Amino acid sequence: MTGRKEQGRMARGKQETQEAWNKVDTVCRVVEEGIRRGEWTAPDKLPSVRAMAERLGMHRLTVMKAYQKLADDGVIEAKYKSGYFVREADRELKAPSDVEPSWDYQAKNVYTNRSRLADIHRVPVDYQMSEALIDPGLLPNMYMSNYVKQIFDLYPKLLSTYSTVMGDPELRESMAGFFKEKQGIALHPDELMITTGSQQAIDLVSRSLVKPGDKILIERPTYSPAIDVFAQQNIRLIPVSITPDGYDLEQLEHVMKRERPRLFYMNPTFHNPTGFTVPVRQRKLLVELAERYECILVEDDVYHDMYFGNSPPPPLFYYDTEGYVIYIRSFSKYVAPGLRISVLAARPSLMRGIAPVKALADNGTPLLNQKMFQLYFFSSRLQEHVAKLRIALQLRKEKMERLLAGTGWRWTSPGGGLNLWVQLPDGFPVDRLLARCLEQSVAFVPGSICDPLGELDSWIRLSYSFINESLMEEGLRRLIAAAGELHNGST
Amino acid sequence: MTGRKEQGRMARGKQETQEAWNKVDTVCRVVEEGIRRGEWTAPDKLPSVRAMAERLGMHRLTVMKAYQKLADDGVIEAKYKSGYFVREADRELKAPSDVEPSWDYQAKNVYTNRSRLADIHRVPVDYQMSEALIDPGLLPNMYMSNYVKQIFDLYPKLLSTYSTVMGDPELRESMAGFFKEKQGIALHPDELMITTGSQQAIDLVSRSLVKPGDKILIERPTYSPAIDVFAQQNIRLIPVSITPDGYDLEQLEHVMKRERPRLFYMNPTFHNPTGFTVPVRQRKLLVELAERYECILVEDDVYHDMYFGNSPPPPLFYYDTEGYVIYIRSFSKYVAPGLRISVLAARPSLMRGIAPVKALADNGTPLLNQKMFQLYFFSSRLQEHVAKLRIALQLRKEKMERLLAGTGWRWTSPGGGLNLWVQLPDGFPVDRLLARCLEQSVAFVPGSICDPLGELDSWIRLSYSFINESLMEEGLRRLIAAAGELHNGST
Repeated sequence: MTGRKEQGRMARGKQETQEAWNKVDTVCRVVEEGIRRGEWTAPDKLPSVRAMAERLGMHRLTVMKAYQKLADDGVIEAKYKSGYFVREADRELKAPSDVEPSWDYQAKNVYTNRSRLADIHRVPVDYQMSEALIDPGLLPNMYMSNYVKQIFDLYPKLLSTYSTVMGDPELRESMAGFFKEKQGIALHPDELMITTGSQQAIDLVSRSLVKPGDKILIERPTYSPAIDVFAQQNIRLIPVSITPDGYDLEQLEHVMKRERPRLFYMNPTFHNPTGFTVPVRQRKLLVELAERYECILVEDDVYHDMYFGNSPPPPLFYYDTEGYVIYIRSFSKYVAPGLRISVLAARPSLMRGIAPVKALADNGTPLLNQKMFQLYFFSSRLQEHVAKLRIALQLRKEKMERLLAGTGWRWTSPGGGLNLWVQLPDGFPVDRLLARCLEQSVAFVPGSICDPLGELDSWIRLSYSFINESLMEEGLRRLIAAAGELHNGST
Repeated sequence: MTGRKEQGRMARGKQETQEAWNKVDTVCRVVEEGIRRGEWTAPDKLPSVRAMAERLGMHRLTVMKAYQKLADDGVIEAKYKSGYFVREADRELKAPSDVEPSWDYQAKNVYTNRSRLADIHRVPVDYQMSEALIDPGLLPNMYMSNYVKQIFDLYPKLLSTYSTVMGDPELRESMAGFFKEKQGIALHPDELMITTGSQQAIDLVSRSLVKPGDKILIERPTYSPAIDVFAQQNIRLIPVSITPDGYDLEQLEHVMKRERPRLFYMNPTFHNPTGFTVPVRQRKLLVELAERYECILVEDDVYHDMYFGNSPPPPLFYYDTEGYVIYIRSFSKYVAPGLRISVLAARPSLMRGIAPVKALADNGTPLLNQKMFQLYFFSSRLQEHVAKLRIALQLRKEKMERLLAGTGWRWTSPGGGLNLWVQLPDGFPVDRLLARCLEQSVAFVPGSICDPLGELDSWIRLSYSFINESLMEEGLRRLIAAAGELHNGST
């Protein structure tokens, strides 16, 4: 055993720190003296950290600490990304978040990633029709909160406990029971993984199953972040058009045969953004094609429970006997979306590849969220809530359709889901419409970002699930007015 | 507007389903008849789904559904991954999780990922010294649970609300205040990202900043999952040895100059697994080297708050004036680990690249976890708890050192952290020791998986943070006995 004493080193460290602070004081005096002398007067900008360091022959860190100290003392003022300024004696101190130093940022980020939908969502608006989320006003918040509080009595050490990588065994067991009972799909709990939302499930699939240079099939249009997720991997995206009747299977088989794509990312039920549902007959044939051409089907079933009228046909996963389908199902979205609980189902040969990526991504979804979800999801109140939610969403959809009825725009009325996929006149400047709408606090998704080819630029996606009915009226009024102005301006 | 009726299609779907079920019944009758006739008797295995489908000229899906139905009815029995078997009349039905069909898995997962630490943790053991986690017995579970229940009164719609991608603005604001007050580091809230544990932060950095073919520096030894995370990206790992005195900076500069690595993943404070702390003087020089050679320093500061005696020197991030350091700090680990809250701090030029990857990875850490963490972390009770925890961990560390004192094994007593990095005699068969220990319900981490070169195979990492003192006595007794047997056997 070679026990080492670290005290000597630590003491040296403290001493060095003291010397550094003496230098900091020197810089402070130089600046204060300069201000007194009138070298810099309010609201002058002080020399940059770099320039002052060179002038004084000191380290930039020393100057930076001095500037920070002077800012704390109210002598100078730090403006975020601009620099340090002499402060006027009578001006109020800004809120802490505004008082930040500028930096001479030198490090460059040469690798670009993007999430175009997140970019749109970053703009806060009052009339929110770009996010396909459920209006919190449609969820039984009080009931849920009171109900899930029980979780701490049931699991006293829950806040101290990690989940297993695959997810809580109890929840996966319950989920296996759910799939068996509700969908007639037999699953071993080890064929189920709990993910932090469906977004994570898509990401994990993309990371575990494709490699640079692979070809993958993706619907056109599709869920925009899926394009970004797969594009990140440096693969080739081959678009497959989706119509109210599903896909052109002959064409699809041709492409599978010629291109041998690794996987097909699909959203065949109340498809996002179009609302289309791939018919049963195609579902069976698709599974056969997948098997024949060894193309994994990644079935994103995000809107399964949000149907109006008829419930949707069984997932493609139901028809899969050979383990070619990966099934991603959103669950917490309609129940307690803040919990972020989705399920990824895959047979062992595929799950074996996905599980290690989940371990590296986050070591497992937080157990707290899983236990809370389980408690509420399998409660008697739940099905009642979901049935009510379906009706509320249908009413909002119908309201949106009525409000758009006079525009002459075209759409296919969806049998479920959260979105209307609306076609504006050919050549309509949707990008300019979006800019104007954002100025007026109205957000929607431009069709082009849902298109792997970046076209479909006369389409827009309007979500009716987040905005309440009175806000919807005003939001659409503004949108339609903005479109009218652009239309008149452009003709 | 082109509203479409989907009823016709749905009805066709239902009809097809009915026909399919008639075929399923046919198969059921064939099997039941065969069993009555004695073609298959318990406990015979039935023909595989594939073979039966060929024999009857039916689709495999039909046969599978029939087998499932027969299993549900108790006529046959499904054994996970083995197949279907004729059931003995008197045998009890198995628990649902054991009754699962076998599949002819054809889909192949050709891309391998791995998480070797997760592989070890998958084995459940009684004497847990492989996981560097905090014993839930050391956390004030009752107090935390009661305290965080308030969160639902404070934020009544919390279970319905998503976080922003970067994390809750309120928490980032508080964290900026924390860094300013406790570490003298000025940060704008937009320079902070909340992640689902530090594991996710490392993963996001790896995904946003490196691309295939890049070279990166990584300590030797290091945190095993970091090796796996970076190796996933198909980059070249260049090991940098860490010693009780830090790194060999001359050698390091030479490597930076020659190889131009993209980044250096480091854990300079109570380093995992060794417990070493890089001295202050090196910290400043490292930041200068990073700037000179444009090599980003990824500073993983997981054990910062777990010091025994002196608190650690300031993070490298403190010395960085040019934005070359990315700082990852674990927070919930010592407070409420189930919440999985860590912070990634980076200046805007780097954060710009990381934020979109977070959006694609999970769209933001669940808000519930962030709010609960904030409530507890900034409570008066917290600092008191952390101070107690430090003492408890120090006592466990000292106990482990006493229990190992007679072995002749060597280690450097750490000034903080959760692990002992122990050297066994040269050439000791650590892999065989691990196998024996796991059989005896004892787990530790073999040194080789902490080594980017896969060597260091006479070292082991023993965590003293999860196992309580009495279990530690028995666990180490078993480990030392197993080692003694192997030693005697091999000489």
